[in-house]
Amino acid sequence: LDKTAMEKAATRQDILTKPQGALGRLEEISIRLAGIQGKAIPVIKTKAVITMAGDHGVVAEKVGNYPQEVTPQMVLNFVRGGAAINVIARQIGARVVVVNMGVAGDLPADIRVVDKRVARGTGNIARGPAMTEAQAIQSIEAGIEVVNAEIDKGLDIVGTGDMGIGNTTPSAAICAVMSGQSVDKVTGRGTGLSDEQLQHKIKVIEKAIAVNKPDAKNGIDVLSKIGGFEIGGIAGVILGAAARGVPVVVDGFISGAGALIAEALAPQAREYMFLGHLSVEPGHRIMADKLGLKPIVTLDLRLGEGTGAAFGIFIAETSARILAEMATFGEAGVSEKAE
Amino acid sequence: LDKTAMEKAATRQDILTKPQGALGRLEEISIRLAGIQGKAIPVIKTKAVITMAGDHGVVAEKVGNYPQEVTPQMVLNFVRGGAAINVIARQIGARVVVVNMGVAGDLPADIRVVDKRVARGTGNIARGPAMTEAQAIQSIEAGIEVVNAEIDKGLDIVGTGDMGIGNTTPSAAICAVMSGQSVDKVTGRGTGLSDEQLQHKIKVIEKAIAVNKPDAKNGIDVLSKIGGFEIGGIAGVILGAAARGVPVVVDGFISGAGALIAEALAPQAREYMFLGHLSVEPGHRIMADKLGLKPIVTLDLRLGEGTGAAFGIFIAETSARILAEMATFGEAGVSEKAE
Repeated sequence: LDKTAMEKAATRQDILTKPQGALGRLEEISIRLAGIQGKAIPVIKTKAVITMAGDHGVVAEKVGNYPQEVTPQMVLNFVRGGAAINVIARQIGARVVVVNMGVAGDLPADIRVVDKRVARGTGNIARGPAMTEAQAIQSIEAGIEVVNAEIDKGLDIVGTGDMGIGNTTPSAAICAVMSGQSVDKVTGRGTGLSDEQLQHKIKVIEKAIAVNKPDAKNGIDVLSKIGGFEIGGIAGVILGAAARGVPVVVDGFISGAGALIAEALAPQAREYMFLGHLSVEPGHRIMADKLGLKPIVTLDLRLGEGTGAAFGIFIAETSARILAEMATFGEAGVSEKAE
Repeated sequence: LDKTAMEKAATRQDILTKPQGALGRLEEISIRLAGIQGKAIPVIKTKAVITMAGDHGVVAEKVGNYPQEVTPQMVLNFVRGGAAINVIARQIGARVVVVNMGVAGDLPADIRVVDKRVARGTGNIARGPAMTEAQAIQSIEAGIEVVNAEIDKGLDIVGTGDMGIGNTTPSAAICAVMSGQSVDKVTGRGTGLSDEQLQHKIKVIEKAIAVNKPDAKNGIDVLSKIGGFEIGGIAGVILGAAARGVPVVVDGFISGAGALIAEALAPQAREYMFLGHLSVEPGHRIMADKLGLKPIVTLDLRLGEGTGAAFGIFIAETSARILAEMATFGEAGVSEKAE
């Protein structure tokens, strides 16, 4: 990060017409944005949420309540603007980029989806690896390509998002392996499991880890053995954004799994990440701690798609505008604090 | 609240293309908005933050670090658009209504400020009452008049805000009296007091309560003895908005004091209130609990002006748009959860 830009931003925060520090996290966010963009006054105008879709072979183990056909159905819903992320993106003035990273079912050929499909869904991680090492690398590279294309169009901040029936299962597996926590501590109810279903899901995840023996320190190994194509794509978006100096707002539990993979591959990428929100999924707090990131909002969301990232983008943009547009004590003729 | 509208909103939330409950607090907020507006699909388009300014005789006791001249200076800053609330209001598309409830110093005659000045600052509550009972009633009525005029212009949601050097002192006094908590538990550092200054502030507030003996159950008595003109104005905005069926987003610690007065006068007003954010001031959580309200965001703000309310307005608007604009399972052709 650009330390000079950060110092200038911090100095300016202290002469704006408010008590020093009174804008709390907004000040902190604006200063880090300055460091990421290398500008004393960061600019957030063009915004995008990249929503990556993929399917998961582990649904054969009945870890969720929704049929796999929902993944392509929701991709169509994104393209038509009817999903939650579309509404929130309209509200914050961001574009939604929908990416097919590995949907199992068919999608109409002529829809506005970025086609990066690695395969038609992953393997069943309870019985073997999710994908080959080459596919893991391909999924990350696809994410880098997608975010690079968006940055080339103009992009001051990007949010990650996901869609994939069953994807809290690989995400919990990644969380357990990379944080060292036990599976029962990081596994949640996803779209709404019963107590019995939750216990079954925990057993499936424990089995997936035992069968695959991923190396917690090796991001590619973890991704290929217990990951997902959209999780790899999200890791790529994060790495690509960081490499180009673009702030990236990480969404919830599935995006957090992508962030853990990205951080394992390039620890310095963490400095470019913001955590949009804290999800209801219990493992998300463990991910946040592992990444050293504090969520921007906590609205009890558990939807994914980039919905929590979108709120983080909005607040980051506001923090940058405050730094740019507020009057200083001198400009406004306001008396400063008595010493 | 309109229970039929709330039931319809809740039913619609359950058929939108997401797992039931996956949007957490956004769903809950949209349903209460439906009840307040009496519409199955609430509409939030026109928005305002009403920022009320007043001065406090208790500054003679040296409870803060900023000189009293800052109050009118900041009023000018609001009018010129240079304060934090102006920037955030531009970001969320809300108008800022600046009200002189009781500034001590002079303001230029020709500026765009609603003039409701009750007096040039309150009395020193460490030595006697803040104002007369008639002035307390006048300040509340002024708030009702201001919000009524704004509702007549078109207003779907309103946020409260404050400006007044020294006003965390009466707010902490009100918090202690109305919550029954001890003064040291509800008193904070305001704009940034040292440990020693904080201890002095606590003693001043204890003295104010001992000297005035406010009746905790009587909102007018509390306001007149240990309140402030902007706090009365805020109580009036809340009561006026509730009476007209307009949702009101309460800002931080000073607005919380106004909300406690409003609730003492009309407990049902609480159903129309949202809590925009949780302030750093330690008493704010106690106010939130007493009001039974959960903050929408927590960004470690301690500025007032309506800055926290503005974020709450934005998220409330988003929640209403989600309810209105998301596709249902049927519309989108998305399969529902297996039973």
